[in-house]
Amino acid sequence: MAEFKKNDQITGMNTDFAQWYTDVVVKSEMVSYSNVKGCVILRPYGYAVWENIQRILDAKFKELGHENVAMPMFIPESLLDKEKDHVEGFAPEVAWVTHGGSDKLQERLCVRPTSETLFCDHYAEIIHSYRDLPKLYNQWVSVVRWEKNTRPFLRTREFYWQEGHTAHASAEEAEAETQRMLNVYADFCRDALAIPVIKGQKTDKEKFAGARATYTIEALMHDGQALQSGTSHDFGDGFAKAFNIQFADKDNQQKYVHQTSWGMSTRIIGAIIMVHGDNNGLVLPPAVAPIQVAIVPIQMQKPGVADKAKELEATLKAAGYRVRTDLSDKMPGWKFSEYEMKGVPLRIEIGPRDIENNCCVIVRRDNGEKQSVSLDNLAETVAKTLAQVHDGMYAKALAHMEEHTFSATDMNQMNDIISTHPGFVKAMWCGDRACEDKIKEMTGATSRCIPFQQEHVGDTCVCCGKPAAKMVVWGRAY
Amino acid sequence: MAEFKKNDQITGMNTDFAQWYTDVVVKSEMVSYSNVKGCVILRPYGYAVWENIQRILDAKFKELGHENVAMPMFIPESLLDKEKDHVEGFAPEVAWVTHGGSDKLQERLCVRPTSETLFCDHYAEIIHSYRDLPKLYNQWVSVVRWEKNTRPFLRTREFYWQEGHTAHASAEEAEAETQRMLNVYADFCRDALAIPVIKGQKTDKEKFAGARATYTIEALMHDGQALQSGTSHDFGDGFAKAFNIQFADKDNQQKYVHQTSWGMSTRIIGAIIMVHGDNNGLVLPPAVAPIQVAIVPIQMQKPGVADKAKELEATLKAAGYRVRTDLSDKMPGWKFSEYEMKGVPLRIEIGPRDIENNCCVIVRRDNGEKQSVSLDNLAETVAKTLAQVHDGMYAKALAHMEEHTFSATDMNQMNDIISTHPGFVKAMWCGDRACEDKIKEMTGATSRCIPFQQEHVGDTCVCCGKPAAKMVVWGRAY
Repeated sequence: MAEFKKNDQITGMNTDFAQWYTDVVVKSEMVSYSNVKGCVILRPYGYAVWENIQRILDAKFKELGHENVAMPMFIPESLLDKEKDHVEGFAPEVAWVTHGGSDKLQERLCVRPTSETLFCDHYAEIIHSYRDLPKLYNQWVSVVRWEKNTRPFLRTREFYWQEGHTAHASAEEAEAETQRMLNVYADFCRDALAIPVIKGQKTDKEKFAGARATYTIEALMHDGQALQSGTSHDFGDGFAKAFNIQFADKDNQQKYVHQTSWGMSTRIIGAIIMVHGDNNGLVLPPAVAPIQVAIVPIQMQKPGVADKAKELEATLKAAGYRVRTDLSDKMPGWKFSEYEMKGVPLRIEIGPRDIENNCCVIVRRDNGEKQSVSLDNLAETVAKTLAQVHDGMYAKALAHMEEHTFSATDMNQMNDIISTHPGFVKAMWCGDRACEDKIKEMTGATSRCIPFQQEHVGDTCVCCGKPAAKMVVWGRAY
Repeated sequence: MAEFKKNDQITGMNTDFAQWYTDVVVKSEMVSYSNVKGCVILRPYGYAVWENIQRILDAKFKELGHENVAMPMFIPESLLDKEKDHVEGFAPEVAWVTHGGSDKLQERLCVRPTSETLFCDHYAEIIHSYRDLPKLYNQWVSVVRWEKNTRPFLRTREFYWQEGHTAHASAEEAEAETQRMLNVYADFCRDALAIPVIKGQKTDKEKFAGARATYTIEALMHDGQALQSGTSHDFGDGFAKAFNIQFADKDNQQKYVHQTSWGMSTRIIGAIIMVHGDNNGLVLPPAVAPIQVAIVPIQMQKPGVADKAKELEATLKAAGYRVRTDLSDKMPGWKFSEYEMKGVPLRIEIGPRDIENNCCVIVRRDNGEKQSVSLDNLAETVAKTLAQVHDGMYAKALAHMEEHTFSATDMNQMNDIISTHPGFVKAMWCGDRACEDKIKEMTGATSRCIPFQQEHVGDTCVCCGKPAAKMVVWGRAY
């Protein structure tokens, strides 16, 4: 691995947030730009974060009864065309395979931008009776959308995700599944990623192509822009009718199934970076950090120091932690900077004097707090400190979100907030698409969601002044 | 899930092996044919086998120091073109993406058939010094080859695999890595899949496009045909020169790296099916079986039976086994057939009389052996019996391979064996491509490998009668 160079400073977050982001993802060795336009390489450090995310979510999905499958990566054009809204939403941004070897294909195939059509086609074949329901399937794959402007994790032509696709006997059951999975995402963001989110429903303008309802979790980045972090869609029986997915119910009637889909992608790694990162680089939540504890020996050449460091590593690994001891010949200060850049939650420093005193120094990445602790019960101390790191990160992110959440009752106010204090803006909305479009045009903000937790911010639509139907959270978004 | 129908008999293995195979993969619900020509759907039961394979191999790779990454799925045509032999080998069978949305691409992209070119491109960028070596990377992805004749697992246009790609400072180290990973595959086949293999080197004709040497493990299927089950390639510095991957060595000289790649794919699931399966369906090795123990209650309506079954399930799950208790209202005999079809290694039957006697019946899938065992220490009994199943399966497969391995010293003999007793044929070879071509033309057999364990079968080439250079194992292959 290329040596980390301390003099390669990253751009300050408040100087140029976009450049800071690019510097951090590259210098922390999470990604590398590839010679395939719009696609990036997930390097070991970046991919390991995704593996940890996968492991936690996959276990949760399975605990709830979901099974993994693998659908083809190609969708014949005629299959994509079957559901009208869906094809209109996705056709403009798919990659088309037109040739196999030197032969022109009889029918073009797109590389899946999402797999509803494939799952529906399969469900139509395997679902016959109420006994076959529910079907709770998921797959971990990459998908392709031919985006024009790309940025690592946030928007790339190919990205990794999981897509859950379920089929149910009733509308109620499908709706419950949609909500259940949205809560899985929200809980995961809070408990594993230390990211607070707002849960709500997308407006018709912003919902998924072909969905009856789309639910979303929205997070707020350090720069005050929003990031849609996970979505869950209730399809009703729209796809079932387009693909003729029927089953014989207990009453012997043929009925259409009700379907859902839900997904979380490598985009969430962008959220981790932009919610928690600082001017020294990444700050990773302990649950998904590839290295949770970096052990840096001090005065390594002194007898017993390297051995003691390895001994601590063994103790912590046995307790289940992901630990790296750095015995390279770089100066300790350089190592500190490197693990700071990589966002390692805890650093342990151990030198001759510490060993004499049966202690070591633990430094928290999130707030720089340094404490000398006993080597007795070190695993318990690490457990406690990692929990503090997680809680500290969550509290800080929540405070940031709350401080950057505003209310507006008229367009002047809204415009003013968005342009001077980027963040979430709560404002009432009449429900008309025209107002939604106008708000975007005037402020650059889109409706992020109609929060489940409604508040009364006023009586009238922030845009047209007509009676308000809902409170909406608005914001500029990635 | 569609109910298993006992009257849907599968075709006998000896009647029509190809049809037996198709029946088994479909009726065991491993795969479903898709409406994407040449691609199949891996259903939960089939994908779970792949997940178990992944889990075991991935842990082994990581133990040996490999790191996972994710490269783009597309390769620009100009990048594929960089290594001459490589592009000639793969270009005829790749899928070409020519359009993104409605725009024609400036340069065609192929969907990766394998990723050497992408890794090389990346390595050229990140490798600078001997300190950056070795690079031990791997990725778990699907790849695409535009095959004309496809069969589930054995040959599909899209298939799942892992591809390891490593770069080393010396030729010796690269060669050692190539051998090390071939041994990982061979050990995995023996210890996890109960499949014996022959290890050896591919002839120049059969080696990977662009490799200096290809090593392979070859397994023998029930019908006497061979299946290449894993390969490991030593590239020397050929790719390094084509892609200019140089590093400053300790002596301050700029040198080319030496590279390897190695892969195992979902094809290996085809081997599991065709090595172990029988006329009742799949027979899965315990290490990768999605369900290791199926518990079938007898006289389930009697009080206490279902509860006792669930209690056994809890005991076995706590001991780490993958267990399913079938409390559906199907007859026990139907359940027996269903779990036989699915190749579940052990079936436990428990009824009122068993409970009275504090025992249950354990039935082995591999040989049908039935024994009544005490419920005391059931987890230990299951552990012991699963080990016996594994060993029994391996012994049976090894005996089959040995019984179907022959020697030939002239072409009449060779032709006779191949056409009447399909299997491996050991025969001497002069080393000329012409003889290799002629043997294929006359017998349909290809050179499977030049085994590491050479034997002296004769002095002269089986084909031309000139002095022999090597003993080769020949056979018809999937």
